Amino acid sequence: MEKMAYWGWKKRLGMVLVASGLWAQAGAAQQVNAPSLMPMPSSVQVGSGSLAIDANFSVALTGHSEARLDRAMERFYRQLSRQTGMTLARRNADASKATLLIHTERASKPAQELGEDESYSLEVIATGAKLNAATPLGTMHGLQTFLQLVDVSPGGFATPAVIIQDQPRFPWRGLMIDCARHFMPMEVLKRNLDGMEAVKMNVFHWHLSENQGFRPESRKFPKLHGLGSDGLYYTQEEMRELIEYARDRGIRVVPEFDIPGHSTAWFVGHPELASDAGPYEVERRWGVFDPAMDPTNEKVYRVLDELIGEMAKIFPDRFFHIGGDEVNGKQWDANPKIQAFKKEHRLKSNEALQAYFSGRVQKLVTKHGKTVVGWDEVLVEGVPKDIVIQSWRGQASLAKAAKDGYRGLLSNGYYLDLGWSAARHYAGDPLSGDAANLSAEQQQRVLGGESCMWSEYVNAENVDSRIWPRNAAIAERLWSPQSVTDVPSMYQRMEAESQRLEWLGLTHRTYYRLMLQRIAGANATPEEFAALKTLADVVEPVKDYARQKTTPVEATSATPLYRLVDAVNLESDRGRRFNELADKYLASRCRQDLAAGELEKMVEQLRSELTIWQENDLRLHSTSFLVAEVAVPSKGLSAIGAAGLGALEAFLKAERMSDAAAKQQLGLIDSALADAFNKQLILIPAAGVKKLVEAAASNAGCAPPAPSSN
Amino acid sequence: MEKMAYWGWKKRLGMVLVASGLWAQAGAAQQVNAPSLMPMPSSVQVGSGSLAIDANFSVALTGHSEARLDRAMERFYRQLSRQTGMTLARRNADASKATLLIHTERASKPAQELGEDESYSLEVIATGAKLNAATPLGTMHGLQTFLQLVDVSPGGFATPAVIIQDQPRFPWRGLMIDCARHFMPMEVLKRNLDGMEAVKMNVFHWHLSENQGFRPESRKFPKLHGLGSDGLYYTQEEMRELIEYARDRGIRVVPEFDIPGHSTAWFVGHPELASDAGPYEVERRWGVFDPAMDPTNEKVYRVLDELIGEMAKIFPDRFFHIGGDEVNGKQWDANPKIQAFKKEHRLKSNEALQAYFSGRVQKLVTKHGKTVVGWDEVLVEGVPKDIVIQSWRGQASLAKAAKDGYRGLLSNGYYLDLGWSAARHYAGDPLSGDAANLSAEQQQRVLGGESCMWSEYVNAENVDSRIWPRNAAIAERLWSPQSVTDVPSMYQRMEAESQRLEWLGLTHRTYYRLMLQRIAGANATPEEFAALKTLADVVEPVKDYARQKTTPVEATSATPLYRLVDAVNLESDRGRRFNELADKYLASRCRQDLAAGELEKMVEQLRSELTIWQENDLRLHSTSFLVAEVAVPSKGLSAIGAAGLGALEAFLKAERMSDAAAKQQLGLIDSALADAFNKQLILIPAAGVKKLVEAAASNAGCAPPAPSSN
Repeated sequence: MEKMAYWGWKKRLGMVLVASGLWAQAGAAQQVNAPSLMPMPSSVQVGSGSLAIDANFSVALTGHSEARLDRAMERFYRQLSRQTGMTLARRNADASKATLLIHTERASKPAQELGEDESYSLEVIATGAKLNAATPLGTMHGLQTFLQLVDVSPGGFATPAVIIQDQPRFPWRGLMIDCARHFMPMEVLKRNLDGMEAVKMNVFHWHLSENQGFRPESRKFPKLHGLGSDGLYYTQEEMRELIEYARDRGIRVVPEFDIPGHSTAWFVGHPELASDAGPYEVERRWGVFDPAMDPTNEKVYRVLDELIGEMAKIFPDRFFHIGGDEVNGKQWDANPKIQAFKKEHRLKSNEALQAYFSGRVQKLVTKHGKTVVGWDEVLVEGVPKDIVIQSWRGQASLAKAAKDGYRGLLSNGYYLDLGWSAARHYAGDPLSGDAANLSAEQQQRVLGGESCMWSEYVNAENVDSRIWPRNAAIAERLWSPQSVTDVPSMYQRMEAESQRLEWLGLTHRTYYRLMLQRIAGANATPEEFAALKTLADVVEPVKDYARQKTTPVEATSATPLYRLVDAVNLESDRGRRFNELADKYLASRCRQDLAAGELEKMVEQLRSELTIWQENDLRLHSTSFLVAEVAVPSKGLSAIGAAGLGALEAFLKAERMSDAAAKQQLGLIDSALADAFNKQLILIPAAGVKKLVEAAASNAGCAPPAPSSN
Repeated sequence: MEKMAYWGWKKRLGMVLVASGLWAQAGAAQQVNAPSLMPMPSSVQVGSGSLAIDANFSVALTGHSEARLDRAMERFYRQLSRQTGMTLARRNADASKATLLIHTERASKPAQELGEDESYSLEVIATGAKLNAATPLGTMHGLQTFLQLVDVSPGGFATPAVIIQDQPRFPWRGLMIDCARHFMPMEVLKRNLDGMEAVKMNVFHWHLSENQGFRPESRKFPKLHGLGSDGLYYTQEEMRELIEYARDRGIRVVPEFDIPGHSTAWFVGHPELASDAGPYEVERRWGVFDPAMDPTNEKVYRVLDELIGEMAKIFPDRFFHIGGDEVNGKQWDANPKIQAFKKEHRLKSNEALQAYFSGRVQKLVTKHGKTVVGWDEVLVEGVPKDIVIQSWRGQASLAKAAKDGYRGLLSNGYYLDLGWSAARHYAGDPLSGDAANLSAEQQQRVLGGESCMWSEYVNAENVDSRIWPRNAAIAERLWSPQSVTDVPSMYQRMEAESQRLEWLGLTHRTYYRLMLQRIAGANATPEEFAALKTLADVVEPVKDYARQKTTPVEATSATPLYRLVDAVNLESDRGRRFNELADKYLASRCRQDLAAGELEKMVEQLRSELTIWQENDLRLHSTSFLVAEVAVPSKGLSAIGAAGLGALEAFLKAERMSDAAAKQQLGLIDSALADAFNKQLILIPAAGVKKLVEAAASNAGCAPPAPSSN
């Protein structure tokens, strides 16, 4: 109570917003610009007034102190300077005078642990702000929240008055980046760690080895990276540097060595570890391949023992990921020695053989002081209870594991490479489906989740755009209360966060024009470039695994990622807005209660877009082979524009579109979609236009349906 | 002849293009996409066919070899990878098999010198390319030309077949960046050196000291940077690093220590060097100030002797810039000791006193093995002939110096901070005006020129946008034959080069959206942001020194650079294109020989832009103080849109606009311009709209002018 009085909140309090989608309304009611917080804190109370952010901004740090907090302040000031365009240098002030008074109670663990206290409270009034946290982890989260509060206002840069109490819903909120299929340079990882810090994710899962590459330097087995990485690997200094970089941001680093499958790259230098004699080359193709370690070979365990020991000294985290997924067993079946071993040890299946292998490896991991994490497949009968299951299969698998006493992480639904919308990722909850029915104790075993960026079709140039901003929606799912589910609010806040992430150097927005310019060519006229962009703005890459299925030539790791499908956004904002508007128009076109001109305005907006699309193909001249590749989707967009304009015409004349005409138009749209699909693209406005055409054929006027005219 | 036959050129030669604006036509005639070379080489012969650039691209280096050439190849491969989106790793091949065969005859000088051989020849046919150069300097220039040849084509990435012979017109082609008024971090300088290499500039003039900051670390006089830089200075390691970085790119580094004026920052730590006792603080304001070194104080020369000696060891270049500009003499006049000295030495004016000072300093510079460069003011009677004059005053001053036997550089006309169009910079030639009449021997003394980026109103965030792409036009002026003057060709090629420069990390295009987003605020809707961008797209900052004159509050080095004037492009492409279209329409509207619909298309384009502008102000909602600042220019744009639509209306009806109506509209436009000017902005389409209105009032139809209707 005293603290509250001191901060003057009792009188100033406006409404209480338990985290929800109510910001916009609250903002209007309070005459305060609603802050776009993401992830939404667990409790936010909006006060009145605001705290000005100007050149005099000062801080005071009290309580526990350490160099990491000072570095966090440096980042904070740097980001504050970028966001505001003011050159703010750190000013320390007395606790009684500081603009932002920070109190950290105690140190966090020397090596960050699962389940540490990450909570914080943040109180802002017109004269100052106060951030309290149990540990530096909470302090750093609170600083990120503060940065999200800063925005332009009528009087300058400011943060609205608020009281925030916040802590994460799940203790494990991760991002996995596959650095093996396409190597990701250090700078890419660093800026993504910056992004993770901004949205309060706390685990970087570093997928380090694959058929296509063994990326960590091993001094004990230098042939592993020396022959298995094409020279693209992380030195031990770099790994240590990245771990420090992550620790500075409250992020644990969990390395993954995917065995016994997914390991061709290991065998280039060490064919004796494989179940077939080899020789091996670094795999260039994508897919699931036969090579697998030989579980019957004692040398395999000796090498793993030494390697895990070497890596355990580099990675301080308690957890160590051994993969374990997608062993097809073909090499095992073909090897008589392995077959004999299975008989001898009464291992009736390859699953049982893998369980034997996993058990041996798990002991090695334990010996080196670590706890195993593995994909679903490692969970077989008899596996020790301390392992953690990362589920690509889903909530049912997760729930079963939890019931059986295992801790688990959800990644199903969070595969960023599948190209889903943010809304679709956002809808996936670790405690939904079968997991919703777990007991409280069992639910505790669901530690959280991880988004996964598999890298068959991403490289350093476009990977940021495949992670962000959608990853912010997943971060919110894992941090915020389960009740935070409003999708329009999420999109609005994600857009604001996406802008802020750019100040960190993430390239998820800047990459777009640059890649389009390459496609259009240096000699494209402004009009030609605009036409390419118009097309690109409303297409998305095909979803899920359709890209592999539709490719005319099998892609490999040597395939350039310079096509339109690589350049377009995974979520077309312009296409989505058109479809939303089409829905809104269809829902309201016969209503009598709309304001004058509102319907006309919608029609005008729809018509404007449709006209641009219909005419765009005529403008798309180019001598670029990369533009030529999308000539068919461009014609498809034109057809979709024409079909939509036809439907609008019917509405305006209140003349029902004939069934034949509608059928023809819908057929053209479907053809356009199918043709674009073969170029691995989806024409997003097709969905909205189909609805318009169907409605026009059903009842173009607002009277009861007329009998068919043909 | 043998070489030509070997390369098969004799039969393949198409037309010869001595560098000019004829690319587009040549391209069409040859069915080859015309390459956008900038600066234009002195001789280009376009052949037929093209050389494919694919994953097999290989190189061979013959002749002289050195590590710098290897690093140049690394950069070349990196840039080629970025431009093409292919992950190209360096492949070395036998000379007989390499895609690109490079021959460098001999080493260049250990420290790059003025006037070294920078020539190269480049020959490309369908089966390979050959680059020959006398020295690594020419080799590196040729590699940049090769990169500019690479573009998308119908069959993939390729370079057209060409024979290029190239060498610079002037040996001194520089860019000066003022790192004193606003400190520029190393990464900013490095990426600008990358840009300089791309356009074949060869001198980085590092403006290191000013009233507002002393930026180089001095170990002999640590108070200079210690008290005179606010902690923002370059360590000696960083300076050496930058010099190496520049040398790797064929760029000399000339440091400037501006004395005896422009030196307040020196006096913070060493007030005893000044002509008034002080004390001094780092200057925060902009302008010309009183503090100046005391030319009568022997300690001044002892300190300069040691400091120049210290810096001469760091900077290997032969030239050393001592500034010398804008001494107002007030401190000298006010100091009785200095007055006595003048009398004693018969120095009749402050100019004579400064000449005495310059002479003393020149001897010190010579003692340390360097040659003096100074601004116009250092050229007074009796100054030794080996100094180089950098002219901010213009060609007349340059010509006079050359006639008197002095070497000179032109910077007048190349001040990037004045916000001129690329075309205006491009029109300035070092050998025009008085300099055109120099004898051949005298013209030899005109070494070239330097663009200057004074930094009162730029910082690390927007400086790239104030240098690029316009600096490429200046680079062309200094490299290419004097006959290369076609402005439309320059703009077309500059646009292509501007795109390529982005791959080097220059932020001259990406900064724009980010700064606009900050201005709009994180919560701006897409419509609000679009409205801000529509306004921003057609305004430019006021030119020349109008910004100082119009500012309501005096700007200082602490003033944030986050306003719209800081964010908009220095040259509005959209505004320029509108004005060009208005001109074209007015010139053709009464012609009978246009293709059907052509006039209508122009009208439609004009109307579309004018309508957007007229309506834009209604869309510009915001709670941002930075948007509120431009409310008046926004209304002005609306008025300009309305005026233009009125004129179009008159043309379409063929009814002359009344004088009264025209006068009113022109008055509104002038008011809009004046109001915007007070916000330090120019509404670019106003010029085109004024012409439309004037034409509509003169004769809206195509008949002979009718008598006035009012």
